[in-house]
Amino acid sequence: MAQQYPKPLARLISELARLPGIGNKTAQRLAFHILSLPDAEAESLSVSIREAKKTMRYCSVCGNLTDQDPCRICSDKSRRDDILCVVESPQDVMAMERIREYNGRYHVLNGVISPMEGIGPGDINLKQLILRLQQHEEVKEVILATNPNIEGEATAMYIARLLKPSGIRVTRIAHGLPVGGDLEYADEVTLLKAIEGRTDL
Amino acid sequence: MAQQYPKPLARLISELARLPGIGNKTAQRLAFHILSLPDAEAESLSVSIREAKKTMRYCSVCGNLTDQDPCRICSDKSRRDDILCVVESPQDVMAMERIREYNGRYHVLNGVISPMEGIGPGDINLKQLILRLQQHEEVKEVILATNPNIEGEATAMYIARLLKPSGIRVTRIAHGLPVGGDLEYADEVTLLKAIEGRTDL
Ligand SMILES: [Zn+2]
Ligand SMILES: [Zn+2]
Repeated sequence: MAQQYPKPLARLISELARLPGIGNKTAQRLAFHILSLPDAEAESLSVSIREAKKTMRYCSVCGNLTDQDPCRICSDKSRRDDILCVVESPQDVMAMERIREYNGRYHVLNGVISPMEGIGPGDINLKQLILRLQQHEEVKEVILATNPNIEGEATAMYIARLLKPSGIRVTRIAHGLPVGGDLEYADEVTLLKAIEGRTDL
Repeated sequence: MAQQYPKPLARLISELARLPGIGNKTAQRLAFHILSLPDAEAESLSVSIREAKKTMRYCSVCGNLTDQDPCRICSDKSRRDDILCVVESPQDVMAMERIREYNGRYHVLNGVISPMEGIGPGDINLKQLILRLQQHEEVKEVILATNPNIEGEATAMYIARLLKPSGIRVTRIAHGLPVGGDLEYADEVTLLKAIEGRTDL
């Protein structure tokens, strides 16, 4: 009878294999590596998952991932209140922050409209955006920085049409980003160019 | 001031980035994925790491990773006692088991002699192998199934010389495996051929 992995090891492998981009071979390699770690290091990995999951929440104002509510960006009095950048994900906020150029506020949709996947406007953090704009008349410009792919473009168009009656200036980041690309992985120069070349919608 | 990741998230990313083959970009992607999981799933991943680390031990007989001591293979009365297969790692035991052909015992070195990395014969599970062979005269053949690369070959040669005076038959798996390759990733047919074509040393 061929030998199976002992249960605790098999479970660890199958948990790791559920992570995106981690195949079964990689999961096995990671599991054996974890077992070879000093106890304290393996425990630290385990605890970091639990703690991050327990502490991190979505900001009630902007939808960004945060360990305090409102998040640091929403609470930062030094940032401009007249400009709001709409992005798909918390990763995109970090990508924007890395260019060290943008000093306004954010709104994180935590998703994108995708009829193919059955995700409509009601399934993303959009109602809260409208509410914010109604309550904060100081916002003079909304930059739509969704990804430059089909879903991102469609979502930008949808939001642009939604905001049209408000008279607020709505801009879209320029196609400095390769079409079909992902904002999160853009290099900083490209992203900076995209911001500088933004156009009215 | 550019925004940093909140601490619990930064910690999770850095813990994940310490895993082998996981770069910073991948660690970020995994961290955000983990945060997007239902609480129970993230907790299950965290617990599986802790439990595997807590339960899994090295078998005091053969050096294999196990959740009981002696391990299931060492405790299995149906396996042959006259043949012993020496491998570098627990993963290699699993690779051997997958061919469903070998029915003897194992000895896991949990390492390989590597002067380049300062790993000598005393740093791997070798003394215990000699002890086993002295205590168990029923062993008639030792198959050296270390990896077919420089360190694996050198380790096999070292062990062969060490066992020479004992008169026990010492064999080396055949070079059906690509030279420089890794036993753990060999397909089952190749590994089976390598076992069948083993030669005396
Ligand atoms: Zn916020
Ligand atoms: Zn054992």
